[in-house]
Amino acid sequence: MTVYTATVTSPVNIATLKYWGKRDTKLNLPTNSSISVTLSQNDLRTLTSAACSEEYESNRLFLNRKLESMETPRLIEVLKDLKKLREKVENSEGNEHLPKLSQLNLLIVSENNFPTAAGLASSAAGLSALVKAISKLYELPDSLSEISKIARKGSGSACRSLFGGYVAWEMGELSNGEDSKAVEIAPLEHWPNIKALILVVSAHKKDVSSTSGMQLTVKTSDLFNYRINNIVPQRFEEMKKSILEKDFNKFAELTMKDSNSFHSTCLDSYPPIFYLNDYSRRIIRLVHLINEKSVKENGKIIVAYTFDAGPNAVLYYEEENEKTILNVFYKILSEVTGWDAQKFDFKNQEYSKGQLILSDEEIDYSIKDGISRVILTQVGPGPQDSEESLIDVASGKPKFSS
Amino acid sequence: MTVYTATVTSPVNIATLKYWGKRDTKLNLPTNSSISVTLSQNDLRTLTSAACSEEYESNRLFLNRKLESMETPRLIEVLKDLKKLREKVENSEGNEHLPKLSQLNLLIVSENNFPTAAGLASSAAGLSALVKAISKLYELPDSLSEISKIARKGSGSACRSLFGGYVAWEMGELSNGEDSKAVEIAPLEHWPNIKALILVVSAHKKDVSSTSGMQLTVKTSDLFNYRINNIVPQRFEEMKKSILEKDFNKFAELTMKDSNSFHSTCLDSYPPIFYLNDYSRRIIRLVHLINEKSVKENGKIIVAYTFDAGPNAVLYYEEENEKTILNVFYKILSEVTGWDAQKFDFKNQEYSKGQLILSDEEIDYSIKDGISRVILTQVGPGPQDSEESLIDVASGKPKFSS
Repeated sequence: MTVYTATVTSPVNIATLKYWGKRDTKLNLPTNSSISVTLSQNDLRTLTSAACSEEYESNRLFLNRKLESMETPRLIEVLKDLKKLREKVENSEGNEHLPKLSQLNLLIVSENNFPTAAGLASSAAGLSALVKAISKLYELPDSLSEISKIARKGSGSACRSLFGGYVAWEMGELSNGEDSKAVEIAPLEHWPNIKALILVVSAHKKDVSSTSGMQLTVKTSDLFNYRINNIVPQRFEEMKKSILEKDFNKFAELTMKDSNSFHSTCLDSYPPIFYLNDYSRRIIRLVHLINEKSVKENGKIIVAYTFDAGPNAVLYYEEENEKTILNVFYKILSEVTGWDAQKFDFKNQEYSKGQLILSDEEIDYSIKDGISRVILTQVGPGPQDSEESLIDVASGKPKFSS
Repeated sequence: MTVYTATVTSPVNIATLKYWGKRDTKLNLPTNSSISVTLSQNDLRTLTSAACSEEYESNRLFLNRKLESMETPRLIEVLKDLKKLREKVENSEGNEHLPKLSQLNLLIVSENNFPTAAGLASSAAGLSALVKAISKLYELPDSLSEISKIARKGSGSACRSLFGGYVAWEMGELSNGEDSKAVEIAPLEHWPNIKALILVVSAHKKDVSSTSGMQLTVKTSDLFNYRINNIVPQRFEEMKKSILEKDFNKFAELTMKDSNSFHSTCLDSYPPIFYLNDYSRRIIRLVHLINEKSVKENGKIIVAYTFDAGPNAVLYYEEENEKTILNVFYKILSEVTGWDAQKFDFKNQEYSKGQLILSDEEIDYSIKDGISRVILTQVGPGPQDSEESLIDVASGKPKFSS
């Protein structure tokens, strides 16, 4: 049998200017533009293989070895768009010899290298990987921004995972969404020394799903329209500027303010939506305390928090301040998993004797009761080709099933 | 010796449309108008005796038997204003015979019938009682609204405690504050069946004082100006209307929305301010669940929450729904103090068999871990004259000191 396959990995991205609110739920068109940092795939990535073959009797999708339906409205849209682009390739002059892949069923096999339970933005990595793997399989000539529109239909924030480094999702104005796409603000290489410490808050009951939460906020919050019309547009320009100028002070302040602004509109919804819990709040206080100390010393903000639709904290900082930041959080969280001794030898003088910005009395050790694991990572590149296929070309089956 | 004395009691008031933000910190002029419900003095009140005598060598103030300074800028202002009004009385024609009390030092003895620790708005009761006691001692002819401006200078929300029932604090426009005063929306008798269940959250470290919190919000929140200019003015009119029409559905919805809106601007401050904790949030969820059930049954919202600058919940409801409400909260909190068996015989069929709106599975029993006591009360009248003086007329001393 002939099996055509392609495999890619795709990253998680964490917004620093939040996407919250859809103006079109079917097309995933947002009420405001957003900005994100793409995280390294060494720590968080989805590996996805796509295959098509005449032998396949139906489309099939395996997520983390579990068979999932491909008949969801969003996936149907995504596949329709990708097949249309493939048809264009097949029908264009000189390509008569190309196999008619657009007419074959697909097998998608996808695996994350991190626990989806962690409540991290796994759908962004997953959908972007699926779209990228299929467009590679189809050898589509289209630009990443073009492809990002298809990923967007699958899961809004997935469009931002098609680029590495610093990414903007431009909301666009058209009702068909043709101008609502991801673009690169700056590549990884522009500002490579941004690190991220993710504090995963212990298993919790999520208040409401992002999708229904967004709709509730759009419908009921009195403050929401002011946020999207009067605050975000200016902040979007300021944050892009801070990234282009590698101005961490400004970038950090805007990131923290936007996280708080987003959660304010959740609290202003009716009934109110709560994603932050008491541990999230203690982390926020601790970050502001660290920055106060640092600003006193040298006028510099050195760490920024941001929270998506859940209690997990993502802390951004520059590599040069890593010792200072990690000294505080390792003291509190040394017992939880995720500290990679290879990368961070905390017993080592460097770290144990590194600049101590907070005294023991200033550190809120109760934070450790709420954190189940940490993830140490950094800004990373966009989707990558991979040799590590999850599909056996000979049998055309998922490798794990053989 | 001649000792002139007067004694009054004054109530606590809990805002349903929140006062948050000063446009003038010295005069306590607010950035928006607010509305409150005055609570019964049977449960929460300050008892204050004021005396003056030629024998007094200085002004003295005892709060809960502790000597406090009267030389604070706010108290100096308050006394200056009251003495000025007394002088006017003394100097007006036909009053030549009146004693020149305006020239005598004052003794103020004040006691609350509730723990100030509880973090309830005790300053409103305290300042209004002080101002009312002195104006009674001085036999001032001025209206309550006139007197409320003096109380306002002592503690903003104190001005609302000079009236019973349903009270508005009109922000005014003048820079001297002469039009920033409390007025009655409706007296207790208009809507006497509003009850309040106060859930006192266990001892907590307060995030920041209201005074500095307000200033931080005014200075840093991007959403704050929109709240005061575009949301509160309309809500103020709607809430007054709902009170005049005794429309609990509307009143409850506006009260809950305004509490959330106020706490949203706190979260939107930089650094963010947090007054609600995880227990406050669970109470909010429970209240919305109760209302959902009730709306399904008969289209009626039956309970409203509101939170001041702290985690304590104040729940308002109509007497006719008391069994339904108390059944839920007594189930959760039967072990904490504050359930007055005299008033509420929960063992009694009435209550134990009262309409059960939530099943055991729907009730979040973890709430009891965060609540230290309940206070059952209701809408009440304004300041009252009292015979129970705290000052011994013969000796001119505080009674407890004799």
